[in-house]
Amino acid sequence: MSEKRVARVTDIIASSPIGFDDAIKVGFERASRTLRGITGIRVLEQRIAVDSNQIAEYRVRLEVIFILES
Amino acid sequence: MSEKRVARVTDIIASSPIGFDDAIKVGFERASRTLRGITGIRVLEQRIAVDSNQIAEYRVRLEVIFILES
Amino acid sequence: MSEKRVARVTDIIASSPIGFDDAIKVGFERASRTLRGITGIRVLEQRIAVDSNQIAEYRVRLEVIFILES
Amino acid sequence: MSEKRVARVTDIIASSPIGFDDAIKVGFERASRTLRGITGIRVLEQRIAVDSNQIAEYRVRLEVIFILES
Amino acid sequence: MSEKRVARVTDIIASSPIGFDDAIKVGFERASRTLRGITGIRVLEQRIAVDSNQIAEYRVRLEVIFILES
Amino acid sequence: MSEKRVARVTDIIASSPIGFDDAIKVGFERASRTLRGITGIRVLEQRIAVDSNQIAEYRVRLEVIFILES
Amino acid sequence: MSEKRVARVTDIIASSPIGFDDAIKVGFERASRTLRGITGIRVLEQRIAVDSNQIAEYRVRLEVIFILES
Amino acid sequence: MSEKRVARVTDIIASSPIGFDDAIKVGFERASRTLRGITGIRVLEQRIAVDSNQIAEYRVRLEVIFILES
Amino acid sequence: MSEKRVARVTDIIASSPIGFDDAIKVGFERASRTLRGITGIRVLEQRIAVDSNQIAEYRVRLEVIFILES
Amino acid sequence: MSEKRVARVTDIIASSPIGFDDAIKVGFERASRTLRGITGIRVLEQRIAVDSNQIAEYRVRLEVIFILES
Amino acid sequence: MSEKRVARVTDIIASSPIGFDDAIKVGFERASRTLRGITGIRVLEQRIAVDSNQIAEYRVRLEVIFILES
Amino acid sequence: MSEKRVARVTDIIASSPIGFDDAIKVGFERASRTLRGITGIRVLEQRIAVDSNQIAEYRVRLEVIFILES
Repeated sequence: MSEKRVARVTDIIASSPIGFDDAIKVGFERASRTLRGITGIRVLEQRIAVDSNQIAEYRVRLEVIFILES
Repeated sequence: MSEKRVARVTDIIASSPIGFDDAIKVGFERASRTLRGITGIRVLEQRIAVDSNQIAEYRVRLEVIFILES
Repeated sequence: MSEKRVARVTDIIASSPIGFDDAIKVGFERASRTLRGITGIRVLEQRIAVDSNQIAEYRVRLEVIFILES
Repeated sequence: MSEKRVARVTDIIASSPIGFDDAIKVGFERASRTLRGITGIRVLEQRIAVDSNQIAEYRVRLEVIFILES
Repeated sequence: MSEKRVARVTDIIASSPIGFDDAIKVGFERASRTLRGITGIRVLEQRIAVDSNQIAEYRVRLEVIFILES
Repeated sequence: MSEKRVARVTDIIASSPIGFDDAIKVGFERASRTLRGITGIRVLEQRIAVDSNQIAEYRVRLEVIFILES
Repeated sequence: MSEKRVARVTDIIASSPIGFDDAIKVGFERASRTLRGITGIRVLEQRIAVDSNQIAEYRVRLEVIFILES
Repeated sequence: MSEKRVARVTDIIASSPIGFDDAIKVGFERASRTLRGITGIRVLEQRIAVDSNQIAEYRVRLEVIFILES
Repeated sequence: MSEKRVARVTDIIASSPIGFDDAIKVGFERASRTLRGITGIRVLEQRIAVDSNQIAEYRVRLEVIFILES
Repeated sequence: MSEKRVARVTDIIASSPIGFDDAIKVGFERASRTLRGITGIRVLEQRIAVDSNQIAEYRVRLEVIFILES
Repeated sequence: MSEKRVARVTDIIASSPIGFDDAIKVGFERASRTLRGITGIRVLEQRIAVDSNQIAEYRVRLEVIFILES
Repeated sequence: MSEKRVARVTDIIASSPIGFDDAIKVGFERASRTLRGITGIRVLEQRIAVDSNQIAEYRVRLEVIFILES
């Protein structure tokens, strides 16, 4: 029988000048430096910041789920 | 006159092999071990994990509201 | 080229007996005492608590976005 | 041919210290004392009120549908 | 200068065996028999009840807005 | 142990030529004249009516929660 | 006592050059040719396809609910 | 291979004293007088304005999609 | 490295005269008779059908996720 | 009988260092300089931009409705 | 005049260890093996499964629309 | 002190036979040819058009925010 577990959910916004895929990796790497037991990520939003008519930054809002030590 | 208070909101996902009501208790007990001043909980989502055609786990996503010490 | 940054998002509920604008200030002041690098706030919800037929408290739910140190 | 009927929809919030199922019954019993012709109920929200680190109250928000006398 | 007014909002579900347009009329006629000062109606939902493979009833959920006497 | 209570939820739309804060007060005053046991209000929507290029009216849609006598 | 039943829900998109009411009938007729035990339909979306500045097609997205044989 | 195209989306609200179908036609005719390359319309909302207890106007909110000249 | 898998999602509505927990079991049992490889279920909606002022039936709308054979 | 009218809906984001009420006025004044026949405004979102731990700007997203000349 | 057509909508979840674009291709290939007449796909959700602090799987939830043979 | 600015929000749908990233670039390039002062873009929807069982076109719906000259 599976034991009783509790996970926490936190939202982060990661950005990269390269693209959305890279912004997701930036977010995952930063989160996994501080949080152990990450089980999943959900992409909530994808935005682009524009400056002087150029794409400056790709921003993703991510929901990060990680298991809490019991 | 009521004083100026601030509370924080955090989401957790709690699971139990028994049922949703038990999963809610698991989540509340784990949260109240770390957080003082919990005032409320809101059930956001109810999922069931299935394994080899059997119900393995009841999972609830809970929003937990707790008062921040001023 | 903009560098790779990560911000976190957290929800708070701030209350004041005076009004919504004041409740927003209460929330911002409390958040900025603990969190450095706040970049933005979004008003998610506006509620009023009523007691003995009088407005007792204005409550705002705020989403606070703050940059994580890399 | 089915005749032309009109129903009304009203929201109630029912609470019980025992559990969500009981809170639903509390709500249904109170509604059916005042409203005749109830045809259906939809569970809109499930909250828990917490006091001094104990579950104080299970609250359900219910949508009640009842037929209006023509 | 416009004076201070308050309106109420109530939801009804009206049905007709003929069609959605007729169901809306059924709902409006029933509401306007009981409520004075109706200013507007919003169509929230359109459903069809089917019985023995035949369309039995067109049902519309309507939001009715009416001015409260001051 | 908290006793079993039931509250009702109703939506009103209150308007004022002065501002949103005043429209909320107009709505609360009108509601509390008819309803006893109001416990809370939630702001659902904020609109402005414009006439001949001037702001004519501030309108708020409010959800009013009040305890039903058992 | 009512027995234990299970229904399935499936979405279809039906189109007609005549109008929305006809598109709904087209969808219902097609569904009831393949599915027995249809109990209800919910209109999810209403679109119009335009071609060379003329209305070409009325499209409705319908949710069809039908009882599964036990 | 399909070429690279860009369309714009704009919302209009069209009204008619006759019915929703007519209001949709009013909206489409007005839009197609100003916009070339309309490809589609989506019905977002259906409201009725009521005056002295009579249906005065059927209003539809429409999303209009039209191809931009490259 | 995890291999490439595809799952399907289907919605069912299960009912029981006993309670929501039982309705969920009724739905799961019926689904697992026809579908192999069920991995998860999400509770989408909880309704109650009322008949002659008595609770007749508890109805749950469930989203069932099952792995497709490759 | 009311004549057939068409209105357009456009979203703007207005900002002010003073407060939300002022930001709404800024938005309305800018819109009414370019658009005649504005009939209404709906507040969609309220955000605050923060810079060096100070509230820099109040931003409101507004939906502006204006009648199109026939 | 366009003829009367009916399409069905079904949701699938496709996964790939490579990336979201690949997961979409995996889903489309699997769907087009079983379903003829696919006309469109809509990306509903993008998730990442994480295992031992590594990205294990990119998962996309897709809505697949396919024409039913009349 | 930041000055009072107003931006406009418009939705476009851009398509490319290559992929979503390219469709976003197509949309941004087309928009920045007509609109000066673009500050941001938000991805609202990602669809794929399929023709004779082949992916024909990647379509993205984008929200484009641009500053209005005062």
